[in-house]
Amino acid sequence: MISKKMENMVANSSAIRAMFEEGNRMAKLYGAENVYDFSLGNPNVPAPEAVKEAIRHILDEENPTALHGYTNSNAGYEDVRAAVADSLNERFGTAFTAKNITMCVGAAGGLNVILKSLLNPEDEVMTFAPYFGEYRSYVDNYDGVLVEVSPNTVDFQPKLDEFEEKISRRTRAVIVNTPNNPTGVVYSEETIQKLAAILERKQTEYGTDIYLISDEPYRELAYDGVEVPYLTKYYANTIVGYSYSKSLSLPGERIGYLVIPNEAADSENLIAAANVATRILGFVNAPTLQQRVVKECLNEHTDISYYDRNRETLYQGLVKLGFECVKPQGAFYLFVKSPVADEKAFVAAAKKYNILIVPGSSFGCPGYVRIAYCVAYETIVNSLPKFALLAEEYQ
Amino acid sequence: MISKKMENMVANSSAIRAMFEEGNRMAKLYGAENVYDFSLGNPNVPAPEAVKEAIRHILDEENPTALHGYTNSNAGYEDVRAAVADSLNERFGTAFTAKNITMCVGAAGGLNVILKSLLNPEDEVMTFAPYFGEYRSYVDNYDGVLVEVSPNTVDFQPKLDEFEEKISRRTRAVIVNTPNNPTGVVYSEETIQKLAAILERKQTEYGTDIYLISDEPYRELAYDGVEVPYLTKYYANTIVGYSYSKSLSLPGERIGYLVIPNEAADSENLIAAANVATRILGFVNAPTLQQRVVKECLNEHTDISYYDRNRETLYQGLVKLGFECVKPQGAFYLFVKSPVADEKAFVAAAKKYNILIVPGSSFGCPGYVRIAYCVAYETIVNSLPKFALLAEEYQ
Repeated sequence: MISKKMENMVANSSAIRAMFEEGNRMAKLYGAENVYDFSLGNPNVPAPEAVKEAIRHILDEENPTALHGYTNSNAGYEDVRAAVADSLNERFGTAFTAKNITMCVGAAGGLNVILKSLLNPEDEVMTFAPYFGEYRSYVDNYDGVLVEVSPNTVDFQPKLDEFEEKISRRTRAVIVNTPNNPTGVVYSEETIQKLAAILERKQTEYGTDIYLISDEPYRELAYDGVEVPYLTKYYANTIVGYSYSKSLSLPGERIGYLVIPNEAADSENLIAAANVATRILGFVNAPTLQQRVVKECLNEHTDISYYDRNRETLYQGLVKLGFECVKPQGAFYLFVKSPVADEKAFVAAAKKYNILIVPGSSFGCPGYVRIAYCVAYETIVNSLPKFALLAEEYQ
Repeated sequence: MISKKMENMVANSSAIRAMFEEGNRMAKLYGAENVYDFSLGNPNVPAPEAVKEAIRHILDEENPTALHGYTNSNAGYEDVRAAVADSLNERFGTAFTAKNITMCVGAAGGLNVILKSLLNPEDEVMTFAPYFGEYRSYVDNYDGVLVEVSPNTVDFQPKLDEFEEKISRRTRAVIVNTPNNPTGVVYSEETIQKLAAILERKQTEYGTDIYLISDEPYRELAYDGVEVPYLTKYYANTIVGYSYSKSLSLPGERIGYLVIPNEAADSENLIAAANVATRILGFVNAPTLQQRVVKECLNEHTDISYYDRNRETLYQGLVKLGFECVKPQGAFYLFVKSPVADEKAFVAAAKKYNILIVPGSSFGCPGYVRIAYCVAYETIVNSLPKFALLAEEYQ
């Protein structure tokens, strides 16, 4: 009865659902403290205290009719968008104005808005494996075709030669995600420069515009002082999708934004289209209270040292046990090589020790598993002896 | 550059945009108090004080990580969904549980979620003119075809004979909106019973399932004690889309829900599909703080007497001036017959008196105009002498 497109999606989702239910079942059975659930990217660092203060302050100051009303533009409050633009300009030396900012229902909302604005049926959208599995659904929503570049398992930087070969006349967009989910890898400036040069060449060769969509929910989660290049400075047809889900620990509140620079081809129409897409997809506008909150919290940050400690402890612990993993420079994931080719068997083996992890095939990269370390430090520490037992199985 | 589908949408939207800009321009030029903007359905009754108290209380009580985190199910918090179900059961004698409730990013989000879940390309969705123009976009998002039943301008109850004739094998859904935007008409119980009987007959005739989607943002805005029938009790394949935008004056916060009853055909799959659609369309989950707020405010209501006074004053005033209008029983709109066939000329004439109203063609009903009376009472009172001058033009 449900739509054809949804049939498979429902089938897949029930698998994820089952895994989640299993986690709950195990927590009930063994006690939550004895289940090591590394399966979800749900931040466990609370939102900064400033968020609570901002909400209180906004409730006191603002007229409720205006505060909770529709925004005049579907792109959001003019002053909020201007403040976001200013803070980006200050940080990255860009020259955005309110016009370039479209407030969105999280980065997921933003990606849907921009893909709705860009894609005709059969248009190709490229991305580099391993990648966030939802990209496939987002592209499919608008009858586009996701074209994968195979993973470079040496350092998980993108395979640019294969990328260049696979770009076609139908390529409308390329989605990059750095810091990356699931690898935690940050694309180097050199990588970005090469990637931009390839796109420039191909645009000239085909006489098309190819948009680079930078999905940046993890921008603020970078360790060891590593720089995360701001892509609009390297390639004119760049669109940025940002989320406060991780930077302010507000994933449930659904607040983020799109940046559509004036330099992007057809930017006037694209900005207008993003506005309309926000409306007709049913978002209408990003939640208004949260728009006001992020304006007051533009200089707030999540406690990254918390994730960093988890990263170091888990990474060092797993490597000592003989697991292979590229040390992540950002986000809150480890992408670990499965000791056996069929990583699903490894995921199943881990479950015997109450360790819940996600198979790499969900990210277009079989043979690996994703471990989300946005959990309590104790979970990391207590899981290591279990990982040790798991490792023994593969000596 | 932008997608074909969006090209026309952007063209249309710039017209709406232009009208909005014009309103701002006039407000600057003549002073906001001298512009009578009846063009928008943005409530001007503030949210109940209880909403502010609820937010404060929730911030004090709840763990921020849980409060602002992703919900375990994309359908929303289990306890919030259970509370919504209970309150519906209490009011309408239904027997819903949390399972039947999917929290949504407003009714617009909910309609997109259910249409995504139901529609295959070329599937037909029927609705009764005049209707909320966005339905056309929502259906088009999933490559469906909107089939209009022509307006019954006598009393704006649906034309059921034409409805029955136009139902086909491709009819997947019917969207009804009562109390209605733009007419304010409430469909009578008799109308609903007849409509349900027709759908039953046609389901049997074609061996199909036809879903009745009841779009209910205005359910709580009914005057003179009129009953708004709860449609799941009249037809098994009914899905309800509800929004708190008007009932709690929270349109900007994007919070509402879908009801998918167990009685609906293939309900298990449909509920699962709504869950997945919520995720992949980029909503992910309804804003979490607002989910908690509505749970605490289930028995709160907007001050309907405010709208009622506007309704009486404007309706009586316009009728006295010779305008023709069916007295609305709900929502906050008057749908007035244009004195000239081309209502756009009438809209233009009204603008000379700083009166901003919307042409009926935007609702599939030319020859009429929509006047949104969710404005300050003073605006109503002060606009009447201007309407008088406008009326004189048509003596």
